[in-house]
Amino acid sequence: MNNGLGLHILMEFNECTAEVLNDLVFLEHAMNKAAEVSKATIIKSVFHQFSPQGVTGVIVVAESHLAIHTWPEHGYAAVDFFTCNSGMDYMKAYDFLKEQLNSKDHSYKSITRGIIKTTIS
Amino acid sequence: MNNGLGLHILMEFNECTAEVLNDLVFLEHAMNKAAEVSKATIIKSVFHQFSPQGVTGVIVVAESHLAIHTWPEHGYAAVDFFTCNSGMDYMKAYDFLKEQLNSKDHSYKSITRGIIKTTIS
Repeated sequence: MNNGLGLHILMEFNECTAEVLNDLVFLEHAMNKAAEVSKATIIKSVFHQFSPQGVTGVIVVAESHLAIHTWPEHGYAAVDFFTCNSGMDYMKAYDFLKEQLNSKDHSYKSITRGIIKTTIS
Repeated sequence: MNNGLGLHILMEFNECTAEVLNDLVFLEHAMNKAAEVSKATIIKSVFHQFSPQGVTGVIVVAESHLAIHTWPEHGYAAVDFFTCNSGMDYMKAYDFLKEQLNSKDHSYKSITRGIIKTTIS
């Protein structure tokens, strides 16, 4: 058994459309939608535009967080999705975002977090 | 060579003091301080208290983000630190947090993000 308290999904989106990766309004909408389709409960969304390019955004959800960091000059976006609720469907967020970012090369890995070794009574 | 655009450090803090893990004010201060000691530039800090227990917090920094999710009932905190600046000293944040959380069992792994295969000219 390898059950943890949380699951951390690291998503790599390569070969995306550069313009999309520099569009804060578009990305904030897409990430909030990604949270919704995976059945996350949004608490707060914070996005920031960098100069000359790039966007960072984090959505705090009741089940933990989603974050995105973009490098338009490389056509790359790093997304991570931390969830403490096994009922959340992070694959729906992944599928939705790869379409939105128009990523032609994408992958993800999931990492179990919080494997408790001892029982605290 | 395995250079990426970002470095994602996943920190596991086990056997922490339960009271500390449920104290939003303390955790927000500690996380902001952890960002400072690692030379991150803080943009925005968002923390949320859960009922009956647990805290989630994210700090958006100019170099990407720091996040914490706590399970006081298990004495566990998951912290992640995403940086796109190799000049940041994430080990200072790690050392600072393990002291603040009074963690007796802790570890971290660093994951390279954004390994660009093709050069976009």
